[in-house]
Amino acid sequence: MILAGGVGGSRFVRGVRHAHPEATIDVIVNTADDITLHGMRVCPDLDTMMYALGDGIDPDRKWGRNDEGWRIMDELRTYGVEPTWFALGDRDVATHIIRTELMNAGYRLADVTAALCHRWLGPESKIRILPMTEDRVESHVVVDDPEAPSGRRTMHFQEYWVRHRAEPDALEHLLIGIKETSPAPGVTESIAAADLILIAPSNPVVSIGPVLAVPGIRAAIRAAKAPVLGVSGIIGDAPVLGMAHRLLPVIGVEVSAAGVGRHYGHRDSGGLLDGWLVHDTDAGAAEALTAEGLPTVATPLMMDDPAATARFLAVGEELVGRRA
Amino acid sequence: MILAGGVGGSRFVRGVRHAHPEATIDVIVNTADDITLHGMRVCPDLDTMMYALGDGIDPDRKWGRNDEGWRIMDELRTYGVEPTWFALGDRDVATHIIRTELMNAGYRLADVTAALCHRWLGPESKIRILPMTEDRVESHVVVDDPEAPSGRRTMHFQEYWVRHRAEPDALEHLLIGIKETSPAPGVTESIAAADLILIAPSNPVVSIGPVLAVPGIRAAIRAAKAPVLGVSGIIGDAPVLGMAHRLLPVIGVEVSAAGVGRHYGHRDSGGLLDGWLVHDTDAGAAEALTAEGLPTVATPLMMDDPAATARFLAVGEELVGRRA
Repeated sequence: MILAGGVGGSRFVRGVRHAHPEATIDVIVNTADDITLHGMRVCPDLDTMMYALGDGIDPDRKWGRNDEGWRIMDELRTYGVEPTWFALGDRDVATHIIRTELMNAGYRLADVTAALCHRWLGPESKIRILPMTEDRVESHVVVDDPEAPSGRRTMHFQEYWVRHRAEPDALEHLLIGIKETSPAPGVTESIAAADLILIAPSNPVVSIGPVLAVPGIRAAIRAAKAPVLGVSGIIGDAPVLGMAHRLLPVIGVEVSAAGVGRHYGHRDSGGLLDGWLVHDTDAGAAEALTAEGLPTVATPLMMDDPAATARFLAVGEELVGRRA
Repeated sequence: MILAGGVGGSRFVRGVRHAHPEATIDVIVNTADDITLHGMRVCPDLDTMMYALGDGIDPDRKWGRNDEGWRIMDELRTYGVEPTWFALGDRDVATHIIRTELMNAGYRLADVTAALCHRWLGPESKIRILPMTEDRVESHVVVDDPEAPSGRRTMHFQEYWVRHRAEPDALEHLLIGIKETSPAPGVTESIAAADLILIAPSNPVVSIGPVLAVPGIRAAIRAAKAPVLGVSGIIGDAPVLGMAHRLLPVIGVEVSAAGVGRHYGHRDSGGLLDGWLVHDTDAGAAEALTAEGLPTVATPLMMDDPAATARFLAVGEELVGRRA
């Protein structure tokens, strides 16, 4: 069982699949980045996961579809229809059209995701992609805005991330609606039944944070029999992928492998982890965290290919053991 | 003021614009072919008209967008989502996405059409494209089906036309919902204010038929001060475009220029027309109809380019005169 976001998360899951080709793997994916654009429901992390595991992802961009076209975006721009800052490829739009039609017909997100995954993973897949929740929740970011009466402005995370490239300082990160959510069907059951729980090296604020904030998920992980292994997405003082360094300070977490390790915390001191992996250049952090009671190993964490991911996963599994 | 369907209608309107570049022209377009596909509202005749007048139409297919891509169709097929028999080009889909979003936001079809036309015709356009109605109405075709309990099956016109290429014999043509419709805003006003009313050489059953069947439109035309000129879409015993010959028999109309002329009828005997144009090879029909009281002229009706259309239009205008 893996908690994950999109781009980094999907690379991690590919590595886990490579390490355990026969294992049943449930991936619980962040949905707080989801957004409705031009009337279509877009689930960036679910789609990235699905495309990446189904070999449909663009290998250069690392998101969106391979062999993608941009006619629809061109048209929307020519029609003068906003927003134009969120890139919707033509192939990708087909996914959103199908999802939106199914949801408008009354199907809920877990079933819709399963229906879409039927194509990407096949009917016999041992991998199951689950949304963290079927309820609406949205990541919003608060920034300074001298022109607003309050001096601040709140925008959807996608607008902050994609349109503004995380350039304005984030003052606050809000998960609108999170308290009213509940885990999607299968999520807590999957956590309880797992023999290993993995926290992918995804963004701790906007990817893993929302998953853990769905009421019931954190408690289910703490109650789970399986050991919990986390992998740092931060190497030195910067994220391997993405812009987590722009958001970690907002939740009071130091931008370092140690900072994120402490943020997740050891199970025995109210946290989640049984073990924590940091990059081999962060050996100092590993030593410090282990001394603080969180078993941590420094090992090469680059996910250049699934085999590389499988190698550090083996180190982590040895660290936390597997309970029978 | 012109009543029109899609492909033939838009070619006709281009000719009328060529003949009268300074005239204000309202085009009342059939909407009974409209269909919701994959959650998107598709208005084939409105779109064909808009693309054709805005130089965005594919010059070879004569429908859909130029420089079109088919990634979305490929994806829908790969996902296994039906129907796959209706070709939705990528550029075209952008139009449907915008229309659907606007309609879901509460805008009605006339305003949505005007918003889309802002791009295609420009803000200063003297041409206005009006849907015949904003109410839902659907052309259905009844065919034999030995496997159905009743021995017959009813399908949406698009399914009959596009999927089955009008091959099964049509037993009946139904305009579901037509009695509950009313003309779209501006339609009856436009008819009353016109100084010339033109019936395009579109399909008399499924294009012009629905427009005339919207309660109030036929009466408005009969009450109009302007002369009414019709143009035959049938030459000899076959339509110039499309498959009107497959449907005319269903409404009891002979597949000939004379048959359609008699179907529309002369204003003085309860019909609509002040004059009727047939192709020059149908001179016999012209003679017969004129003798029956419907002033008819035979003249070359091919619409190879707008100038050719303008030439026969001039003949027709002379035939019916223009009332001041």
